[in-house]
Amino acid sequence: MSAWETYLDTHQSRFLDELVEFLRIPSISAIPAHAPDVQRAAEWVAARAARAGLEHAQVLPTGGHPVVYADWLHAPGRPTVLIYGHFDVQPVDPVELWTHPPFEPHVSAGRVYARGASDDKGNMLAPLLAIEALLRTSGALPVNVKVFFEGQEEIGSPQIGPFLAAHRDLLACDIILNADGGQHSETEPALLVGLRGLCALQIDVTGPKMDLHSGLYGGVVMNPIHALVMILNSMRGADGVITVEGFYDAVRPLSAEERQRIAAVPYDVEALKAELAIPATFGEAGYTPLEASWVRPTLEVNGIWGGFQGEGVKTVLPSQAHAKITCRLVPDQDPATILRLVQAHVERHTPPGVTVGVTLFETLAHPYLAPEDDPGNRAARALLTELYGREPYLVRSGGSIPVCTLFREHLGVYATSFGFGLSDERQHAPDEFFRLASFRMGQRAYALMLERLGA
Amino acid sequence: MSAWETYLDTHQSRFLDELVEFLRIPSISAIPAHAPDVQRAAEWVAARAARAGLEHAQVLPTGGHPVVYADWLHAPGRPTVLIYGHFDVQPVDPVELWTHPPFEPHVSAGRVYARGASDDKGNMLAPLLAIEALLRTSGALPVNVKVFFEGQEEIGSPQIGPFLAAHRDLLACDIILNADGGQHSETEPALLVGLRGLCALQIDVTGPKMDLHSGLYGGVVMNPIHALVMILNSMRGADGVITVEGFYDAVRPLSAEERQRIAAVPYDVEALKAELAIPATFGEAGYTPLEASWVRPTLEVNGIWGGFQGEGVKTVLPSQAHAKITCRLVPDQDPATILRLVQAHVERHTPPGVTVGVTLFETLAHPYLAPEDDPGNRAARALLTELYGREPYLVRSGGSIPVCTLFREHLGVYATSFGFGLSDERQHAPDEFFRLASFRMGQRAYALMLERLGA
Repeated sequence: MSAWETYLDTHQSRFLDELVEFLRIPSISAIPAHAPDVQRAAEWVAARAARAGLEHAQVLPTGGHPVVYADWLHAPGRPTVLIYGHFDVQPVDPVELWTHPPFEPHVSAGRVYARGASDDKGNMLAPLLAIEALLRTSGALPVNVKVFFEGQEEIGSPQIGPFLAAHRDLLACDIILNADGGQHSETEPALLVGLRGLCALQIDVTGPKMDLHSGLYGGVVMNPIHALVMILNSMRGADGVITVEGFYDAVRPLSAEERQRIAAVPYDVEALKAELAIPATFGEAGYTPLEASWVRPTLEVNGIWGGFQGEGVKTVLPSQAHAKITCRLVPDQDPATILRLVQAHVERHTPPGVTVGVTLFETLAHPYLAPEDDPGNRAARALLTELYGREPYLVRSGGSIPVCTLFREHLGVYATSFGFGLSDERQHAPDEFFRLASFRMGQRAYALMLERLGA
Repeated sequence: MSAWETYLDTHQSRFLDELVEFLRIPSISAIPAHAPDVQRAAEWVAARAARAGLEHAQVLPTGGHPVVYADWLHAPGRPTVLIYGHFDVQPVDPVELWTHPPFEPHVSAGRVYARGASDDKGNMLAPLLAIEALLRTSGALPVNVKVFFEGQEEIGSPQIGPFLAAHRDLLACDIILNADGGQHSETEPALLVGLRGLCALQIDVTGPKMDLHSGLYGGVVMNPIHALVMILNSMRGADGVITVEGFYDAVRPLSAEERQRIAAVPYDVEALKAELAIPATFGEAGYTPLEASWVRPTLEVNGIWGGFQGEGVKTVLPSQAHAKITCRLVPDQDPATILRLVQAHVERHTPPGVTVGVTLFETLAHPYLAPEDDPGNRAARALLTELYGREPYLVRSGGSIPVCTLFREHLGVYATSFGFGLSDERQHAPDEFFRLASFRMGQRAYALMLERLGA
């Protein structure tokens, strides 16, 4: 057994105490009253990074919640590895559904229960412990290391783009390891290689300048709700195919190989139906649910409103109706182009009698797909195969992780997903927990990963 | 000049003082805190009816706002005429747009300004003054008279149906004159002979049992908003034609004569577009706006909601979506039948992946069309022709006046619209007013009408 492995083994008890201390800080980024707690968590992380032996450990301002930076850059000729994670957490509502208070960590049967245990404090702390073990036992790291932890991931990292743009030199690196992620199961590894992109817009339909009596004007004045329904219905067929002109033009066709790779990933449709209490799944003909979720774009109405929403009956023909839409995008769709296509479609399908405004939101994410030969992903794939005794599933997510696309944009590096959470750990829900075995696995995996990358 | 005409002439000053006193009572039926004012208005009306010489003047409870009843039944062999009106008023918001406080009546340039002046206190008081003039000058009325004034018209007369059902004998009559109505202009009379009916329902679409992440589930789980959009879009074509199976089956075809009668009524589309600030009107092909509004049924979404309605972007695939719908109905559509047809249509057009519930509201009104030979309308038509020197326009309304259908249902009598408001008098809006000339005209017209009906 290597010296660092022994070090990790002999310090697990202290590490767990430290994780518990970290979890006690209610660093909820979405709630302004908790901003001082997010700041306190940042200071805790910076101090812990310094104790691990990293240098230049500091809390840096962003204009919003802060970030933490630290480094160890004494391996000339070796690659520079940037490790990412986040120390902010989700809100705890509904708090009454927690078995134990969310910020009083409870350890039981090999699990630690607390808000943020899995997402992302437990996962984020593991690489710092690996670094400590390597530095304490050998006095050096096998590669140059920078850590970059943020405090606004749970609110969409609004200031991280500008921060990266302004700190390109500070954060320059060859490989990025993202400690905010997970594996498929306790025995099956997974490597996230793709994400869908995102663009968002709002449609505002205006009819008469005031609400009207639906009896006196119904049948003579176009109802903005009906106009909105017509516009929305024109965008998507009953089969789920998006009917916005040009929407699929840039979509990369699904190769037989990719299709096979996706088919290899276990996916239980019946379990999904039971969990969500839905009578049937839905999706574009010719695609499996995972294909639909990973490699096909969507157009979803996230919200709709107009007219009377109270109890009973009100005979109003309303003045306005509104809808919010997001599209999930896949390679090689461009978010700005898609917004223009949707806007043009709305204009073409606006019925007479109303005026329609389209607001394009700045929330944009490019679709993300790491190339086969990306060095971080190649290393992770090899190491995960070794650790789990089987090849990782190469998975994508239907969601968008803003920081991945931001790293790619500002630092020119793909982020390798290298976290050890599991999907049953109730991230964002009551009774969130993290497996102590995963905590231990993360420490070991990071130490091994840094060794491999330095070899 | 007849004695009662002289009486009216010599008492106008007192009558205006009394109208002002009546208008000072803020009898807003929609606002619970004003319930004592509605009661006070009822007591004022009962006292005024007694002073006019009517007997059995009394305030009667309904379970909600009260009604006022009084009678004079000493004309054996003559018809019994029931006169209807209401003493409750609309709320006054936005109160800052009133030139004078809404309950401090202001008389200027032949108009009295106050909430309720036109709708309906001025119109309602006129027949009581006519009755007083007839009784004071001749000691008798030419017909038997019952007055029935209510205090809940502005909130849809919720307790009037049960009240009529329970007081069929008290209110039994041959002719009903409705003092809540108006004429086409100062020089053009109008007689309202038809109303559209009404039925109402709510559609509740449920997809997944909780809100989902639109990235992780979009494209795999049917979005309830999209399902609702598909259902609503299936109900009405772009041309306004209702596509609910069977919807038009009972609709009486529009005769050439009726079409001609409607075409004779002035209707200014350009003025409507300017007033509502709409780029175009809308309506079923082959029908003019007035035809669409009066003799064609509608299906209008009065409200829609689901998912995120806040600022910015939220990437949610919501659990639920909702819509409220009312249909305006024309002879011979049956509201309950139409509800069943719409419900069946919704069930047939529900896409896979969601469940849909339909709530049928009890708010129902049958379409209403007085027959050509209805005695009240015949008498009103003749008298209006005499008073204005031209035939009244025979008009319908696209709206529904619950009390008209309730009278028909419980008393078996059509209500003859016999009021003298004009559509520019800002009913329901700031600076409502009533013309003193209309007030005077109403008194004279009611006295003449009672004479004619007794002849």
